Amino acid sequence: MPVTIEAVPNFSEGRRPEIVAAIVEAIQAPGVLLLNYSSDADHNRSVVTVAGPPEAVLEGLFRAVSTAAARIDMFQHRGAHPRVGATDVVPLVPIEAISLEACAELARQLGQRIGDELGLPVYLYEAAATRPERRRLPDVRKGEFEGLVESIHTPERAPDFGPARMGPAGAVIVGARPFLVAYNVYLATADVQLAKEIARQIRESSGGLPAVRALGLLVDGQAQVSMNLVDTGTTPLHVVYDEIGRLAVAAGVSIDRSELIGLVPQDVVYNAAAHYLRLPELGPDRTVEEAIRRAQG
Amino acid sequence: MPVTIEAVPNFSEGRRPEIVAAIVEAIQAPGVLLLNYSSDADHNRSVVTVAGPPEAVLEGLFRAVSTAAARIDMFQHRGAHPRVGATDVVPLVPIEAISLEACAELARQLGQRIGDELGLPVYLYEAAATRPERRRLPDVRKGEFEGLVESIHTPERAPDFGPARMGPAGAVIVGARPFLVAYNVYLATADVQLAKEIARQIRESSGGLPAVRALGLLVDGQAQVSMNLVDTGTTPLHVVYDEIGRLAVAAGVSIDRSELIGLVPQDVVYNAAAHYLRLPELGPDRTVEEAIRRAQG
Repeated sequence: MPVTIEAVPNFSEGRRPEIVAAIVEAIQAPGVLLLNYSSDADHNRSVVTVAGPPEAVLEGLFRAVSTAAARIDMFQHRGAHPRVGATDVVPLVPIEAISLEACAELARQLGQRIGDELGLPVYLYEAAATRPERRRLPDVRKGEFEGLVESIHTPERAPDFGPARMGPAGAVIVGARPFLVAYNVYLATADVQLAKEIARQIRESSGGLPAVRALGLLVDGQAQVSMNLVDTGTTPLHVVYDEIGRLAVAAGVSIDRSELIGLVPQDVVYNAAAHYLRLPELGPDRTVEEAIRRAQG
Repeated sequence: MPVTIEAVPNFSEGRRPEIVAAIVEAIQAPGVLLLNYSSDADHNRSVVTVAGPPEAVLEGLFRAVSTAAARIDMFQHRGAHPRVGATDVVPLVPIEAISLEACAELARQLGQRIGDELGLPVYLYEAAATRPERRRLPDVRKGEFEGLVESIHTPERAPDFGPARMGPAGAVIVGARPFLVAYNVYLATADVQLAKEIARQIRESSGGLPAVRALGLLVDGQAQVSMNLVDTGTTPLHVVYDEIGRLAVAAGVSIDRSELIGLVPQDVVYNAAAHYLRLPELGPDRTVEEAIRRAQG
């Protein structure tokens, strides 16, 4: 696969299908692959997943941000999900032959173009952040659209690109982050307290594994540790699985099964198999399918 | 990936590069992907790996068999490896969207064409075999070229296609088999007797795991269980790894690491990860890379 990034822009429109269709149409610049899109009426929000070469994806995103800005009036927008603008957030994700740092640089390029050409205030977050207090998305989104209308003139809310002025399209948050893996582990028990206790022990925020967010839930009568793995390069999925297994066994319980919500990078799978089989050299290049794809060019 | 087979023909020439080059040239009919080829002077033998759509691969194989028949004189051939003809054996292997049984039918088509158009005696083996005593390759190759010159007129050696007559190109063995995985497990010990004992316990021929061939060896001072997994659909690689681990631990030893010789089908990796993570739904379709390839069409 050539240099490939993914982008998962979130738009503040989930009720009017014709607006969503216009955004999805706009994003498909030449070379952009549309992987998925979904709308939520309660959130009044749509999430679009695209991938492709960086230049193509950046062009598609610019067109989509422009379309959303022209069609969505944030002064009229109501919805359950926090948001600061018509295009609320645009994360860029490295997929193949590109680093997170290179994606952060692409985020800055896109942010600058949105600020310059569309005249929208742009905030950089996560790996692209220009200030430590802007790394985390909830911090950047603090006060939401309505709050930012009031506070954008203050030095601490000054945008990274574009004017310090909120129009009907609001602001755009652009950044780069690793691929996010949504992963759940079911325990062979209905004891939700154990799931909550294990979640507390493994999540980064309470001193557990780095890049792991976790909650304990009861799902269909079964205790579940529900997670977002926000950087599987730092803490691989199989390390999380093994740690949950260790904590469960210490409490006299075993793991029943695990599940993925959505997709994973294939390295997650190869790294897990390499770990359990003590086969360090294992990677996609050791498969006949990859050899065939390479021979195809 | 569209319907894809692999073929791993073995030719009785490993010393004259110009003959090998002519065969490798001939095999590359339109649509055929050349994955690998290697020659061994001591064996006086070359192995070529190709893949592609069935019709393309069959055409390439026919051309290669024809070239080998024209350029190799088995009456002059000497080498350490057993063989019955200029093209000694042609295994067809299902890779994508095709069954072993369909590959066996393709082997019969190819065998018939070689018999009819090139006038060579052809034997079908493994999944394509027409008699139980012809399933195993060593049985079909019994007596080698020189023995078959004497015995081909007998009813038990009658070819499946082509004349019961051995010319300078000898006979061709054609068949279908699952992908063969060459897999070694190193024990954390120099005790080769333990490796031999574990190999004896796991190999099919002494009542162990089906579709597993195994030897115990001493490699660079380390005990190794060296294996061919001839059908990972029947006995997956991770089952073999776990069984060796169990036997090693029972003897007070652990597994140091494992290694692949050559390639594996990607399902071997996904099935291992799915097993260890108790994540039964895990497959290539759950990866972002596969989602991108599908979106590319």
